[in-house]
Amino acid sequence: MKTHVAKQILLNHRPTGTPDSDTWKLAEKTLPPLQDSEFLVKNDYISVDPAMRGWIRDRSSYIEPVAIGEVMRALAVGTVIESRNANFPVGLVVEGRFGVTDYAISKGEMVRGIDTDIAPAPTWLGALGMPGLTAYFGLTEVGKVSPGDTLLVSAAAGAVGSIAGQIGKALGATVIGIAGGPRKCEWVKTTLGFDEAIDYKSPSFAKQLHAVAPNGVDVYFDNVGGPILEAALNNLALGARIVICGAIANYNAETPPPGPANYMSLLVKRASMTGFVVLDYEDRADEAIAQITDWMNEGVIHAADHVVEGGINAFPEALTQLFTGQNLGKVVLSVPN
Amino acid sequence: MKTHVAKQILLNHRPTGTPDSDTWKLAEKTLPPLQDSEFLVKNDYISVDPAMRGWIRDRSSYIEPVAIGEVMRALAVGTVIESRNANFPVGLVVEGRFGVTDYAISKGEMVRGIDTDIAPAPTWLGALGMPGLTAYFGLTEVGKVSPGDTLLVSAAAGAVGSIAGQIGKALGATVIGIAGGPRKCEWVKTTLGFDEAIDYKSPSFAKQLHAVAPNGVDVYFDNVGGPILEAALNNLALGARIVICGAIANYNAETPPPGPANYMSLLVKRASMTGFVVLDYEDRADEAIAQITDWMNEGVIHAADHVVEGGINAFPEALTQLFTGQNLGKVVLSVPN
Repeated sequence: MKTHVAKQILLNHRPTGTPDSDTWKLAEKTLPPLQDSEFLVKNDYISVDPAMRGWIRDRSSYIEPVAIGEVMRALAVGTVIESRNANFPVGLVVEGRFGVTDYAISKGEMVRGIDTDIAPAPTWLGALGMPGLTAYFGLTEVGKVSPGDTLLVSAAAGAVGSIAGQIGKALGATVIGIAGGPRKCEWVKTTLGFDEAIDYKSPSFAKQLHAVAPNGVDVYFDNVGGPILEAALNNLALGARIVICGAIANYNAETPPPGPANYMSLLVKRASMTGFVVLDYEDRADEAIAQITDWMNEGVIHAADHVVEGGINAFPEALTQLFTGQNLGKVVLSVPN
Repeated sequence: MKTHVAKQILLNHRPTGTPDSDTWKLAEKTLPPLQDSEFLVKNDYISVDPAMRGWIRDRSSYIEPVAIGEVMRALAVGTVIESRNANFPVGLVVEGRFGVTDYAISKGEMVRGIDTDIAPAPTWLGALGMPGLTAYFGLTEVGKVSPGDTLLVSAAAGAVGSIAGQIGKALGATVIGIAGGPRKCEWVKTTLGFDEAIDYKSPSFAKQLHAVAPNGVDVYFDNVGGPILEAALNNLALGARIVICGAIANYNAETPPPGPANYMSLLVKRASMTGFVVLDYEDRADEAIAQITDWMNEGVIHAADHVVEGGINAFPEALTQLFTGQNLGKVVLSVPN
């Protein structure tokens, strides 16, 4: 049995505002020999997510914060290379919370085997992973999208938004995406097949939103909060459902920015705003994966994986890209052998 | 047939901030003779409501604004004293949108006969009127209160809040009221029978709220918005429902104040915030009235009518009292013969 030295990103310092180089510390750790029921995973792809900003805050939310000096929490797909656990034999490709590290020891908690014949490994962190499940349960269980609805999706070029809009189409809705800049809008319409895409950076954004949804929005899938949430509240149809999935616009703020001043639109429009956390649907993951796989096979859903090369060292930069809005689709970091 | 001169309050000027004497104009109008299908109502009690502030704004909400020079919109209970409509014979006691006037001509639209053997006339504007129906449908249809829930009600000494808390008790909830000042809190606990009442003006308000709802609030019935809504959002139980009924804290603001900065609690707590308008339940009014009547007969619900004397002239002052928080229960203006 070989000794493995893991290259890891540790949380060094809780950031004020946007994470920077001081936030992280690159470390090497010689891993101990495996204990009974443990196995060793070589990470192949590491998921890079906006939610990570919340995990490094000094307060618990729906999940405990990452401690200073701890390996940064991350979902990843990897391969079992040594094992003392019969359920996770050598060679199995697995998905789990292995962290920002090239090698991880696991006992199998919240780890599942994945089938790369169904889809390539990065897709198991995107369309078939947390983002896909978030979009699926947010739209079906919370937003209750039905055929004929007008669905508005913010951060439409992001990991969750890109799938949410496509699932909306599959469910029979007219789908409007909101994204930043013409490049993303073009991609959202052309590659992802949204009916409309509007640029929130455009001075005529509010006017455009009203123009593309003259009868109002039945479901708004909110990934961003801030002024875009206010714009959506100004354009609700009667009985609209706002699904609160995230608030990336606020994630780097030290004090929370003001909430939506026009939330009383909820009363005028008999509308609702509901938060949810995809972890609650863990036991129904198979259902969502099967459905999204079918849609992918039918060509209805395009899994948009955005692979960043460079291994563990490239993690800080990949995370920063999320907040500066450079990615199209789901960002994953590839980890070379 | 006698000629009637109606004394009326007209909207003279849209107020900036809180309505003042300049907002209103007292006028006298000689009413024309009745046409076919019309009847003449002598108003006995006029409802004075926080929602009136919204009706005199220069924009439509769930209802068109009152026009300048028009009789101020108000619900009222009165007696038919002349009639050319067989459905509304002389002597019938009726409730309808007769306005702030002592005499009104109606064709019977949205007018219903009421039975003062069941409850005195003012109660038909309170527990058995719009406030009671608002509380009933807000709690049962939107908040879905069930036995064992912890229910939080703001403006608990107000028209809607006072009934909402009592209906909450009848539905099996533990009920916490929020009101302004010790006199109101005492009244809410002692006279209305809420389990707890806390004073939002107290410096330890946030601490007290947490202390009386250590496991969080399952349903928050919000009549006020502003900082109290934020406090409620900080104290939600998992799966909580916030019922948005009104936002009296904001009604006199010229530009809407910031929304709840901590609305992302909805995500952490998998909670919802839903607006509603009681008019949507108009066709189920009888069901609510029958149920609330039963509860009143059983002594479970106490109709808290706050009758202001002084007739039409006293309307501006009665409305101001609502915003300065002087009333206990439902404010109605009595109109002498």
